[in-house]
Amino acid sequence: MKGAITHSVFFRLKYEPGSSEEKAFIDTCRKVLKPIAGVRDFSVLKEVSPKNEFTFGLTMNFPDQAAYDAYNNHPDHVNFVQGTWIPNVEEFLEIDYIGLAQKVITSNLQ
Amino acid sequence: MKGAITHSVFFRLKYEPGSSEEKAFIDTCRKVLKPIAGVRDFSVLKEVSPKNEFTFGLTMNFPDQAAYDAYNNHPDHVNFVQGTWIPNVEEFLEIDYIGLAQKVITSNLQ
Repeated sequence: MKGAITHSVFFRLKYEPGSSEEKAFIDTCRKVLKPIAGVRDFSVLKEVSPKNEFTFGLTMNFPDQAAYDAYNNHPDHVNFVQGTWIPNVEEFLEIDYIGLAQKVITSNLQ
Repeated sequence: MKGAITHSVFFRLKYEPGSSEEKAFIDTCRKVLKPIAGVRDFSVLKEVSPKNEFTFGLTMNFPDQAAYDAYNNHPDHVNFVQGTWIPNVEEFLEIDYIGLAQKVITSNLQ
């Protein structure tokens, strides 16, 4: 999709794997974030590389930057960050990307 | 796809954005890595979040861990790492993930 942005965040919780806190956190992510306007293809990921410190991820697509900005500023997201994310997450990294078409990088050089 | 693993790496090159070295590196990634057996959905990504230090990403899917291991050990990949990746990449982070089905995390608690 032209202009589409993938937003992802990889993280580690303060709790043991398989704990009830972990399950509650993941359930809340799905319940609160997935229905926010503009969010597409919401997925919870299990991070499996031993080469980083993260154990979970969230990924979602937005049709454009305006939709991403609206999500960031949406009260449900803002409240989630304050009330759920900050108290439960030990460490995280946000990674956002768009596809790099071959013509894009070529045209940079012309 | 059951058992499928997404392998991704986010990175920053030693060169200026839009440089000929950047183009050559991306071209080599596509040329060398994409055709390796087991690689599916190979994509070059432009990392756009200001919240990390990476500017590009590569992502690909493997049907299972055996296919991922075979890719890692494939001579074309090993030579790419030594001859192309290490000399050109300033900093990178590998992130691998599988989808976390709702039943998976639930079953951990049963």
